[in-house]
Amino acid sequence: MTAPGTLPPRPGPADHLPAATDPEVLRRLTEALGDKVRTDPASLAAARTDESGHATDAAPLAVVEAQEIEDVQAVCRICTATGTPIVTRGAGTGLAGGAIGGAGEVVLSTARMDRILEISPQNRLAVVQPGILNGTLNAALAEQGLWWPPDPASKDISSVGGNIATNAGGLLCAKYGVTRESVLALKVVLADGTLISVGHRTVKGVTGLDLCALMIGSEGVLGVIVECTLKLRPAVTGPVPTIAAFFEDVEAAAAACSAVTAAHLEPAVMELLDEQILAAVSAHTGVDLIDRGRSYVLIQTDGPGAEATAQAIRAVLEANGGRVEFARDPAEAARLVQVRREVHPAMTRLGTALIEDVAVPRDRLAAMYARIADIADRYDVAIPTNAHAGDGNLHPTFVFAGTEVPPRVWDAADELFQYAIELGGTLTGEHGVGVLKRRWLGDELGTDQLALQRRIKAAFDPDGLLNPGKVFAP
Amino acid sequence: MTAPGTLPPRPGPADHLPAATDPEVLRRLTEALGDKVRTDPASLAAARTDESGHATDAAPLAVVEAQEIEDVQAVCRICTATGTPIVTRGAGTGLAGGAIGGAGEVVLSTARMDRILEISPQNRLAVVQPGILNGTLNAALAEQGLWWPPDPASKDISSVGGNIATNAGGLLCAKYGVTRESVLALKVVLADGTLISVGHRTVKGVTGLDLCALMIGSEGVLGVIVECTLKLRPAVTGPVPTIAAFFEDVEAAAAACSAVTAAHLEPAVMELLDEQILAAVSAHTGVDLIDRGRSYVLIQTDGPGAEATAQAIRAVLEANGGRVEFARDPAEAARLVQVRREVHPAMTRLGTALIEDVAVPRDRLAAMYARIADIADRYDVAIPTNAHAGDGNLHPTFVFAGTEVPPRVWDAADELFQYAIELGGTLTGEHGVGVLKRRWLGDELGTDQLALQRRIKAAFDPDGLLNPGKVFAP
Repeated sequence: MTAPGTLPPRPGPADHLPAATDPEVLRRLTEALGDKVRTDPASLAAARTDESGHATDAAPLAVVEAQEIEDVQAVCRICTATGTPIVTRGAGTGLAGGAIGGAGEVVLSTARMDRILEISPQNRLAVVQPGILNGTLNAALAEQGLWWPPDPASKDISSVGGNIATNAGGLLCAKYGVTRESVLALKVVLADGTLISVGHRTVKGVTGLDLCALMIGSEGVLGVIVECTLKLRPAVTGPVPTIAAFFEDVEAAAAACSAVTAAHLEPAVMELLDEQILAAVSAHTGVDLIDRGRSYVLIQTDGPGAEATAQAIRAVLEANGGRVEFARDPAEAARLVQVRREVHPAMTRLGTALIEDVAVPRDRLAAMYARIADIADRYDVAIPTNAHAGDGNLHPTFVFAGTEVPPRVWDAADELFQYAIELGGTLTGEHGVGVLKRRWLGDELGTDQLALQRRIKAAFDPDGLLNPGKVFAP
Repeated sequence: MTAPGTLPPRPGPADHLPAATDPEVLRRLTEALGDKVRTDPASLAAARTDESGHATDAAPLAVVEAQEIEDVQAVCRICTATGTPIVTRGAGTGLAGGAIGGAGEVVLSTARMDRILEISPQNRLAVVQPGILNGTLNAALAEQGLWWPPDPASKDISSVGGNIATNAGGLLCAKYGVTRESVLALKVVLADGTLISVGHRTVKGVTGLDLCALMIGSEGVLGVIVECTLKLRPAVTGPVPTIAAFFEDVEAAAAACSAVTAAHLEPAVMELLDEQILAAVSAHTGVDLIDRGRSYVLIQTDGPGAEATAQAIRAVLEANGGRVEFARDPAEAARLVQVRREVHPAMTRLGTALIEDVAVPRDRLAAMYARIADIADRYDVAIPTNAHAGDGNLHPTFVFAGTEVPPRVWDAADELFQYAIELGGTLTGEHGVGVLKRRWLGDELGTDQLALQRRIKAAFDPDGLLNPGKVFAP
């Protein structure tokens, strides 16, 4: 395997389609959608990149700010008629280049489709447009004592549609599940403009193949999600006991986290920071944490039984060498949580940060950490790594100078991905494949499954117009 | 729409495939698989039917009792080479004719692939072969304080593979989710014998399309599930407060259940029996229940906070007109639960029972009950109906004399399905489509989605050899 240097250009539309000129496509879009079609330089420039920092080589043809399902259908019909690729984009907070638009492409933004259509406590569901931000939705739900559990770190700035399109994870997945488990039904526009409804407004439903589940995490390559029926939970109430534990080294911390899971205990949050992260947070905040240990574990429990669970967890951590601080007071708890919150700002002070996203079986967390240290050494690159230890999802963060990812960093990342797969893990736990990881797709899926996945993509999108070059290499 | 009378014959294999003679197919199977190939009349007769009572018109060619993945691959290769349809079958407890074999078909039984390969408390997962019974697995897990939540009524006699192939439901879904939420990864043999691994051994994983979720509930039409990595939970411990409530009529009972959900309370079990069910159970057990009310709601809470939740539920039921009995003593609780357990035996005493399986949004439960009463009246057929009220899944049971389903029963069922769909529900909550409901598939999915689902089926199984005629009509 060779690591990617520059990425190859995105493929054009299928050969048999009419190749309309760019002005002709723009003319048709504007005729149908008026000033929802944006071609100003700022809009085009913004749509070329996302939070990964990766950008396409050139600006897209246009950004269409859809407001209704009919707008999305109109864009899809025009693009199919003219053989124009469609890149669906939500809030643009992706970390894998999955929603970035390049030359000759139309970026279909759902950011202005941001209404709540229904909240039903009787059915414990909400129906929303895809562009609403996760945090905005949850603020509205909280007023009714309800909660949509997906909890990516980006929740205040990322959209529900984007959360669904990437099957977003977050801090609470071991206890509350991934996004897929919080979606009941979707309305989807296919490449040719056809509108279908997949899933059910009911808790159960097994009529036909589960295309709702298949859409979740499909990163815009199968269809455009235009309406979302979300499965809610009652808001979790009561105190949230908070535990911080310092360990001698990251292997000891990882082993302690594994022991918590093996003891059948269910924390809501179980986060692990390694020594380099602690050092960076210390430098950033001026509070010397390294002094107190070489690895930090933050645990919170919630809901009924939270206090008893927290006490049981404390015992496991101490039996595994942890020095535990236990906070019931919200202000004191906030201080412990703040250490975790400072990770991202502390990282960005160190240099350019490429945030990776492997996941491994939970009992292999220590093994993965050991290999990351070895890789950092051999490739001469800093890789501070935090982990959602409750679910085995690590974020090795490659830190380097300059804006371009140096080749040795891709080489190091390649070795890291291969080892995660070897451990029975995955090269992306929650960020998605996008363009940045498509080179490795076959390494994890195998040749036969990759071919099958391409056939499924073609069953949805025979002309290859939906987000070409994302997930699947050209 | 016309209701089905006799079903049309199953389709033959695709035209371009070689049409080997039956003796030639048998010769090849026996050469490769020896005495795993069963052609004795008892084996063939058993494979023609399932718990629905529906049977194929003729015996299958053979039943192959696979023991290893390689056996499954060998059967698939031979069947593809000879253009022979493959019907995968687990424990044969289906209720929709989804795993029954007819003329010219090979029934591929996974019943003898019944080993537990791994239980990992550290990773909270188990790896099993598909033929193990749900109850057998859970007995082994309980010894380690673990639990696999899918809880169909058939759990002691149904297989894990069958539970997965139908996305089985049960009594606990509102609180603990459907089967899809308890499966991490699968090994799948495709029609041509290719083995693929879908899903992840990790809690999170978003590499490529989610084919693991797509396989769940696919009823044998996409591939053969040969190994299952299951997501476990810690066993639920502590007392299980049990509530029985009698209501004046089923509408009042349904409204009370809806009020429990709207009050953000989470029972583990919330079952509803209507007047006809109560009458049948009274007749069957000799205990006069009708005397005490016209509808019965059984509720159990579990886990941390079970007692407080139960008390809050009691208050909601009483505020909604329920006369509540509350049991903390296990023997007394068992007596209340027994009423629910007697439903199936009581039904079978009344005549032949066709157990239907619609689901509706939870706040439409009363509306569905009202329509069922109206349909029973107009079509002159008894339809006692119990419901998993926590998730809106109803089992209207058509009771009639003789063994053949009379045309008026299918007409009544047709009207019932259409109304469930009209309410935003589904024609099957947990039993699957099989052969018995394939006529209605397009009514729920719509023409465009049905065509898409057929294209996906073809992407997996281009020759149409896997369970032809099931789910999708020929």
